[in-house]
Amino acid sequence: MPAGKLHIVPLGGLGEFGMNCMALRWQDDIVVIDAGLMFPETELLGVDIVVPDITYLLENRQHVRAIVLTHGHEDHIGGLPWILSELNVPVYGTEFTLAYVEDKLEEHGLLEETRLHEIIPGERFRIGPFTINPIQVTHSLVDCVALAIHTPIGVVLHTGDFKVDPTPTDQRLFDLHTFAEYGKEGVLVLLQDSTNVERAGYTPSERAVRRKLDEVLARADKRVFIACFSSSIHRIKLALETAVEHGRKVALVGRSMTNSTEIAMDLGYLEAPEGTLIHPGEMRNLPPDKVCALISGTQGEPMSALSRAAVDNHKHARIEPGDTVVLSSRIIPGNEKSIYRMIDHLFRREAHVIYEDGSSPPVHVSGHASQEELKLIINLVKPRYFVPIHGEYRQLRRHCELAAGMHGAVGKVLQLESGDVLELDELGARKAGRVTVGRICIDSGSMGDVVEDIVIKDRRHLSEDGIVLPIITINKLSGRVEAVPEIVMRGFAGAGEDDGFHQQARSIILKTLEDSSPEEKADYGVIKEKIRQDLKRYINKNTARRPLIMPVILEI
Amino acid sequence: MPAGKLHIVPLGGLGEFGMNCMALRWQDDIVVIDAGLMFPETELLGVDIVVPDITYLLENRQHVRAIVLTHGHEDHIGGLPWILSELNVPVYGTEFTLAYVEDKLEEHGLLEETRLHEIIPGERFRIGPFTINPIQVTHSLVDCVALAIHTPIGVVLHTGDFKVDPTPTDQRLFDLHTFAEYGKEGVLVLLQDSTNVERAGYTPSERAVRRKLDEVLARADKRVFIACFSSSIHRIKLALETAVEHGRKVALVGRSMTNSTEIAMDLGYLEAPEGTLIHPGEMRNLPPDKVCALISGTQGEPMSALSRAAVDNHKHARIEPGDTVVLSSRIIPGNEKSIYRMIDHLFRREAHVIYEDGSSPPVHVSGHASQEELKLIINLVKPRYFVPIHGEYRQLRRHCELAAGMHGAVGKVLQLESGDVLELDELGARKAGRVTVGRICIDSGSMGDVVEDIVIKDRRHLSEDGIVLPIITINKLSGRVEAVPEIVMRGFAGAGEDDGFHQQARSIILKTLEDSSPEEKADYGVIKEKIRQDLKRYINKNTARRPLIMPVILEI
Repeated sequence: MPAGKLHIVPLGGLGEFGMNCMALRWQDDIVVIDAGLMFPETELLGVDIVVPDITYLLENRQHVRAIVLTHGHEDHIGGLPWILSELNVPVYGTEFTLAYVEDKLEEHGLLEETRLHEIIPGERFRIGPFTINPIQVTHSLVDCVALAIHTPIGVVLHTGDFKVDPTPTDQRLFDLHTFAEYGKEGVLVLLQDSTNVERAGYTPSERAVRRKLDEVLARADKRVFIACFSSSIHRIKLALETAVEHGRKVALVGRSMTNSTEIAMDLGYLEAPEGTLIHPGEMRNLPPDKVCALISGTQGEPMSALSRAAVDNHKHARIEPGDTVVLSSRIIPGNEKSIYRMIDHLFRREAHVIYEDGSSPPVHVSGHASQEELKLIINLVKPRYFVPIHGEYRQLRRHCELAAGMHGAVGKVLQLESGDVLELDELGARKAGRVTVGRICIDSGSMGDVVEDIVIKDRRHLSEDGIVLPIITINKLSGRVEAVPEIVMRGFAGAGEDDGFHQQARSIILKTLEDSSPEEKADYGVIKEKIRQDLKRYINKNTARRPLIMPVILEI
Repeated sequence: MPAGKLHIVPLGGLGEFGMNCMALRWQDDIVVIDAGLMFPETELLGVDIVVPDITYLLENRQHVRAIVLTHGHEDHIGGLPWILSELNVPVYGTEFTLAYVEDKLEEHGLLEETRLHEIIPGERFRIGPFTINPIQVTHSLVDCVALAIHTPIGVVLHTGDFKVDPTPTDQRLFDLHTFAEYGKEGVLVLLQDSTNVERAGYTPSERAVRRKLDEVLARADKRVFIACFSSSIHRIKLALETAVEHGRKVALVGRSMTNSTEIAMDLGYLEAPEGTLIHPGEMRNLPPDKVCALISGTQGEPMSALSRAAVDNHKHARIEPGDTVVLSSRIIPGNEKSIYRMIDHLFRREAHVIYEDGSSPPVHVSGHASQEELKLIINLVKPRYFVPIHGEYRQLRRHCELAAGMHGAVGKVLQLESGDVLELDELGARKAGRVTVGRICIDSGSMGDVVEDIVIKDRRHLSEDGIVLPIITINKLSGRVEAVPEIVMRGFAGAGEDDGFHQQARSIILKTLEDSSPEEKADYGVIKEKIRQDLKRYINKNTARRPLIMPVILEI
C-alpha cells in the first residue's frame, strides 16, 4: 500500500439538509463530489438560496482538479454557479445531469468558460490519482450515478442519492452487479445517503404512482392538472403516458416544467406521440375532458404557475368547477401552510384535489432508499469503513446505529459532520481536525418566471448594500392597508428620507397591493414575495444596489 | 313546531386551525360553545396568540346567556380571558375543564368576577330556551363532552373534539348509547369534528402507546425523560404507571407539566403511589436507572424545559450519555425545524431519542376520530343536516364529501365557514348572510416559566404602542455578533435616538447574547425569543408601553 494520506472532507450536507458537497484529497490532488444548494430556513427572510462555504477549496485552489456530479437535483448541482465563479474547474456528469447544468450556467453567464465532461455509467475516467467508475443507480430523477473512486489506498464508494427501484420507468436498472463486485474485491469506505434512514421497509417503485394517476384520469370528466417536481422525469413520463392513454392532449404550464420536459425530450428520456403536446393557450379550445396539464408549483411557492392558477391569476391555467388537481409530490416540512392554503383555494373553486394523505395507491413516492435498501447495499458492499452522508445530525446518527448493528458486513462506523476531516492511510482511519465550513446566503435575483441575467451575489457583502424593511399594516377584517407603508433602511447609502426615494418606494408598495386580489392579500407569503420583487426591481434599477429586502406584514 | 328561527353562527375554527368558537341563537337568546385560541402563523412575528373577533357577540351583548365548553384544550378555552374581559357571562364546563379554566382566569385576574358552573355528563341543564345534555366522549384529554342542545325546533348535536376510544385509560367510555338514542329520536343538525377526516380507518386507542413506553423503559439503563403535551392526561397516566412498574421514581419538570399534573391529581384523574413523585432537584441523588422525568416541551419551544435541557441550560434536567428521551407527541406541522434541532442537540449528547417516525408500536396516537369513527357517529346520529366543524377549508370539504356519500344516514350536507349564518326554521335550512369574524392578535406577556400578571393586550392598539425591531447580525462561522445591534423603532413615542434609551436597549441585547451558549446563538428561534423577552421586560418597566418587538437576525 503506497504511503500517503487520503482525506475525505464533507463541505456540506452532513448535519444539515441540502447543499451536498464533499472533497476527496490524495496528497496534492482534490476532487469535489457534488456542489449543491439548500433552501433557506424561514427565519432567514429575504434570502433566496444558501450555498456551502468553500474556503477550503479556495485555500487549495491550485490542487482542485474537478467537480464530479452524481445527479441533477438542486441540492447536488445548485451551488455550481457560485463555486465556478470562484473556481474555474472542469465539471463531470452524466448526459442528463450536464443538460441541467448547462441550462443553469447559461442563466448565470458561466457556460462559455466552463469545461463540461460527459460521463457514462460503467466507463471509468481518471482525475489525477483517482480513477472513477460511475455506477448506474435509480432515484426520482433519471441518469443518476453512484461513484466508485479508486484511490491509491482503496476504493471509496459514494452512493449519491438513490433508491433501489426494481421497475424504473426508463428500464435502466440499478446496477446491483457492480456493487456486488466491489464488495467482493473490497471497499475501503462506503458513503451512503441517509435521507430516509428513519423509514422502515422498502421505498415503493416510481411506477407505484401509475395506478393512482390511472384511477384519477379514469374518473375525471373535466380538465386534469398534474403537478410534480419539474425534475421528476419518471413522474412526468407516467403522467404523459397515462394522459395519452385516456385520450387527452397535454399542455406544459410553468417555466420549470416546460424547461425540464424539453431537456428530457431532447435527450430521449421522454417521448410524446405526435400531436399530443399542445400550447397552454390551446387548452380553452378543447373539450375539458380532452385536456391534461402538467404544471409547476407543488409547494405553494407564491409565484409558481399552480399557486397563481389557484387564485385565478394565471393566463392559461384557470381552475373551473369539477376540474381535478393532482399534487404528485411530497409536502416538504415547513411548506405545509402555503401548500394547504393553495389546496384550500383550489377546493373553493370546486376542484377535486388529490394530494398525499396516506391513502393507497400513493400519489407520490420517495426517491430515497428506506432501511431495507440501505441494508441491502451495505450487505453488497461490505465496507471496511462506513460513513453516512446526506442528512441532518439525527439521521446520520440513526444511520450509524443501523450500520453498527450489521456485524460481518461493516468494519467500523464513523460519524462525520460537515467540516470534519477523515484521514485514511495504511494504519487506519481517524478524524484529523476540521476545515472552515458554513452557509453563504445568496440573493439570486428574481424568483419569478422571467429569468434575469444577474450575477449571484454573496450576502457577505450585506454591509455594503444594506437592508430595506418595508413595513405594511393590513387590516385583517377589511383586507385594507391601514396606513402609508413605512420603509426602514439601514446601511443603504444614497437614499435619504427626503430625496423622493422613500416616497417612490412607498407608491410602489401601494401599487403592488392595489394590483393584488383580496385572496392574495390574505396570503402573507404571496404578498411579501410580490412586494419584495417589485421593490427589488425598482431599487436595482435606480440605485444599482442590491440590499436585503425583507417585507414585514403587521396584521392589525 | 314553534315559529322562530335558529341561527348557528361559527365565529372561529371553520376554515382555520384552532380558535374554535360558535354561537347558537334562538330569537333573543345566544349561547356560545367554546372560546378557543390559535397559535399564530410564523409570518406573524412577535404575536403570542390569536383569538377570534367577537364583534357579533359584543353587538348582541344583552342576548348572550353563557359560554359552554366541550373540553379543556387551548383551542377551545384559550380565548376565554379575552372574551370574558369584554363580556362577563357565566361559563359552563365539566369538573376537569373548569379546573383548567380557573387556573387560566386566575392568571389574568378574572377568576373572582366570573361565574363558573360545573356540568356533569348525562345531567341536563337549561340556558334560556336551550336544554343542554352533555354527553361523555373520549379524546386525548379527560372529562370531554359532546353537547346535545335541545332547541325549540330540534336537537343540535355538537361533537366537540373526540375519538371513539374503546379502551380509555380512565375507563370512562364514549357514551355511544346516548348518541344512538338521539339518532332514534331524530337530530336536526350534527356538527362534527373534522380534524382527522383525511385519515382512513380508526384512530388507535390512547392505550396503544403503553407498549412502546414499556419497551423503552425495559431497555433503558440510565435516566428516561418522557415529554408529552401537558394536557395529555391519559399519556401522563400511562407514563407514570409504566415508570413505577419499572421501579423508577418520577419527577415533573417544567411549569405546564407540573401544573397540569397537579390539577389532575387533585381531581383524582391521576394517582401516584406514595413516595413515587420526587422533586426534580432529587434526580441527581438517585441512581440513573431509578429515575424517570415527565418533562414539558414537545414542540421545541425555545423556552420549554426540554429545549433548555437539550442545550445544558436547565437546572435539574441534564442530559447525560446513555439517557433516553421520549417525545410522546405529534410533530406539529410548522414546528419541524425547531423539534428536529432539539432532537439533534439530544443526539449530540448521546441520548437515545425516541420520536414519532412511523414505527410500531406507536409512541404517539392522535386524539381525533378517523374516517371510520366519523362514519360510525353519523350512522348513529342520522342527522337531517350535517355540518362539519373544526378544520381548514379542505378538511371541511372532505368531511362534506364523506357525509354526502352516506345515503340513508344524512339528510343534507352543508359547508359553513366562520362568519356564515346558518338559519333553520320549520321550512328548512339556509345560509342567511354573514357576521363579522376575524383574528385578533394578542401579545399576552412573557411566555417563559414565570407567570406575569399581565392583562391581555389587544394588538389593535398597536398604533399607540408602536413597533421595535432589534436587528442583530451574527457571523455564522464564528457565532459572533458582528456589530452593535441596530434598533429600529416606529410609532414608539418617548424614546428618541439620543435619550440613552437606544444605548440601553443595545446593551441589553448584547448582554443577552453574551449570556447565551454557541448552540443557543446558532438557533434563531431561541435567540430571538430570548432577546424579545429581555427587551420587553426592559421596555415595559421603563416606559410602561408594550410595543410589538420583532427581533430580526441577519446571518452574514
